[in-house]
Amino acid sequence: MKETNYTINDRLFGPYLERMNFLNEISIDYPDAVSFGSGRPDRRFFSVKDIVSGFLSAGEGDDFFDDLGQYNKTKGIINDTLSALLKNDEGIDADPGDIILTDGAQEGMVIVINTLFDLSSGDDVLLVSDPAYIGFVGYAKILGVPITAVRRNGDSIDLDYLEESIVRLRKEGKNPKVLYEVPDFHNPTGEYMPLERRKRLLDLAERYNFLIVEDNPYGYFRYDAEKIPTLKALDGNGRVIYLGSFSKTLFPSIRLGYLVAGQVIDHKGRRVELVEELKKTKSFTTVNTSTLLQAMAESYLKRQNFTMVPACAPKVEACRVNRDTMLGALAEHFSGIEGVKWNRPRGGFFMTVDLPFEMTDDLLKECVEKYSVIVCPMSFFCLEEGAGANQIRLAFSNRTEEEIREGIKRLSRFVRSR
Amino acid sequence: MKETNYTINDRLFGPYLERMNFLNEISIDYPDAVSFGSGRPDRRFFSVKDIVSGFLSAGEGDDFFDDLGQYNKTKGIINDTLSALLKNDEGIDADPGDIILTDGAQEGMVIVINTLFDLSSGDDVLLVSDPAYIGFVGYAKILGVPITAVRRNGDSIDLDYLEESIVRLRKEGKNPKVLYEVPDFHNPTGEYMPLERRKRLLDLAERYNFLIVEDNPYGYFRYDAEKIPTLKALDGNGRVIYLGSFSKTLFPSIRLGYLVAGQVIDHKGRRVELVEELKKTKSFTTVNTSTLLQAMAESYLKRQNFTMVPACAPKVEACRVNRDTMLGALAEHFSGIEGVKWNRPRGGFFMTVDLPFEMTDDLLKECVEKYSVIVCPMSFFCLEEGAGANQIRLAFSNRTEEEIREGIKRLSRFVRSR
Repeated sequence: MKETNYTINDRLFGPYLERMNFLNEISIDYPDAVSFGSGRPDRRFFSVKDIVSGFLSAGEGDDFFDDLGQYNKTKGIINDTLSALLKNDEGIDADPGDIILTDGAQEGMVIVINTLFDLSSGDDVLLVSDPAYIGFVGYAKILGVPITAVRRNGDSIDLDYLEESIVRLRKEGKNPKVLYEVPDFHNPTGEYMPLERRKRLLDLAERYNFLIVEDNPYGYFRYDAEKIPTLKALDGNGRVIYLGSFSKTLFPSIRLGYLVAGQVIDHKGRRVELVEELKKTKSFTTVNTSTLLQAMAESYLKRQNFTMVPACAPKVEACRVNRDTMLGALAEHFSGIEGVKWNRPRGGFFMTVDLPFEMTDDLLKECVEKYSVIVCPMSFFCLEEGAGANQIRLAFSNRTEEEIREGIKRLSRFVRSR
Repeated sequence: MKETNYTINDRLFGPYLERMNFLNEISIDYPDAVSFGSGRPDRRFFSVKDIVSGFLSAGEGDDFFDDLGQYNKTKGIINDTLSALLKNDEGIDADPGDIILTDGAQEGMVIVINTLFDLSSGDDVLLVSDPAYIGFVGYAKILGVPITAVRRNGDSIDLDYLEESIVRLRKEGKNPKVLYEVPDFHNPTGEYMPLERRKRLLDLAERYNFLIVEDNPYGYFRYDAEKIPTLKALDGNGRVIYLGSFSKTLFPSIRLGYLVAGQVIDHKGRRVELVEELKKTKSFTTVNTSTLLQAMAESYLKRQNFTMVPACAPKVEACRVNRDTMLGALAEHFSGIEGVKWNRPRGGFFMTVDLPFEMTDDLLKECVEKYSVIVCPMSFFCLEEGAGANQIRLAFSNRTEEEIREGIKRLSRFVRSR
């Protein structure tokens, strides 16, 4: 095939967007390495065949299934069930009409970004913490949404720094309009935002007129912390758009997420129900989410009496054991190495380890090639130059205890070699 | 909930994007009306339960299914099967690595538009025919992609007018870089692009350095015409990105589409395999297409020996009968009405009817309320002011023969009343 001179979207070629491929490929290239790279759920708990069989054998006839085959409502067909689930498991009061079923939470992000940002203005700014989940930030980068990174300070995004950033942006004539955050067991750091900070963040959103996109894929995976209400449950002023997912609680290929948005806004003098505009965008991204997969999930949720908590208990427990195994192995193998420390996440799939040196691409490669362990540099999730340079993210969700012990041992050898 | 002053993407409020909702809602508001509005496939041929059961009972164990539960390759896992299908049914030689499985063809459009257009330049232009499928144009409008509409002349887009438009745009410093077209049984007109025009279109793409997005959801639904090769099958210069779908051949809630792009381009001096950039975007729109649905489709395709032609034969035949029933009813009920004419589509789901008056929103409502039949104004699919004003689109894919006869009778009463 001849090579044609043809330009495409130049933003695809920034180093940030290359990182997804780099990380995916390194685990394919080194299949024998212990990978703490990606935060996949543990397939031992999927029960895919049981869930599909249970759906099929629920006694419904051909007509029921053929109805499920057709195009259907843009917002989804199991919104009542989702509303009950959100009430039971999160204490969130969501009208079924304020919910949109999405093709995984990732599509929810695409819908939100396409709907909220006016790309022609150049003044709209997305606020994200540094580091932040690459899926949300990456899509915003593809579109060219201006992004301001806000540093974190321990348990969450730094709220003082956030407020200062907003004030500064407004002085510059910018419009910081959306903050993206994962308050429950943040990806990539593992942090759990304290209640007081949640309340203050909601106050800031009200004071400075921005919306918060609360992404909560890991909320069910809570180990030894009191439950803190989600921002959405605390939200009295319609400031939060909530993103949920079944990828971690059921299994990823169910490709089912949901967004909740009950806001009524005054858009240039026009009264707008935000969910109706998100729905409009959804009709142009994937028409509607597979009703077959929706019905499969609903059939399961009905059998669970509209709560995922008991069904998730063994998965959560296994993940907690993994976390503890990793903490134990770190304490064992890293004792006496100056400059290494780590956090103790109270839930989720990830922990943060500080190293006494910068984790460059070359060192990442050396770590895999010579020590056969894959880690994820924290800088991959960062926007500011130099941020996260001497940190790594370790995912403990998808390994056996033995693999975790072995992987941490290998990692300690690599660190000692520096 | 209080109403907040908050601006979102202003482009969502154009009249064009309101049309999808209008049409969806009118059929919900008038459930007793005969609807020729939407081009849904006929659910009598879905066999959803059989397809799911066949997949479950293929003798695979829990391990097989739990593997399917996990996140998987961004491009998809049934690319070999798709490659065989494209070879058998369309004569298209596609390397499995040049195929990306998508969440319906609609997601393919989102991926293509996000990947190809540099929104910051303002010079990139999308070329579409007037009228064109609202799903592609609508998403481009949400993003603010500049669009130039090219009139049609009978069997396809008007190629003389297309060439003139390109020359004019280039003189203005614009870069007309993508043409979207449905050569096989075009939505909304039903037209089938002749072979000579296909060849000339490919020549124009080569001469003026644009890519063609060929969208082919209806190609299997061919009634009494010789098979004309797709643009992709004729494409010797890597000018075509091909979009396919299982929504019409299997059923819509399988939400499975695919795009084929083997181009190698020189992007500002960088050698780029286009499919790898489309894959990058895909990883940020939906991560990957449900492997469960992919495997379900593959299980079916294997049982069909990698061709959909025999399985589609009864669906195609039923749709042909519907077309003939509609043509017969039109001839019967519209004889003697001045200014009414219609085309005879040789495939697909749609036909075009010319009326002796303009089909306004008010008249559309009157047609439903007083005559209980739903049609789709052609102007809904048009971009140029006044285009398609006295035409309607009739979908015949999803009605019984009796409904078609009754609906056309009602439509004739409405037209006679004007």
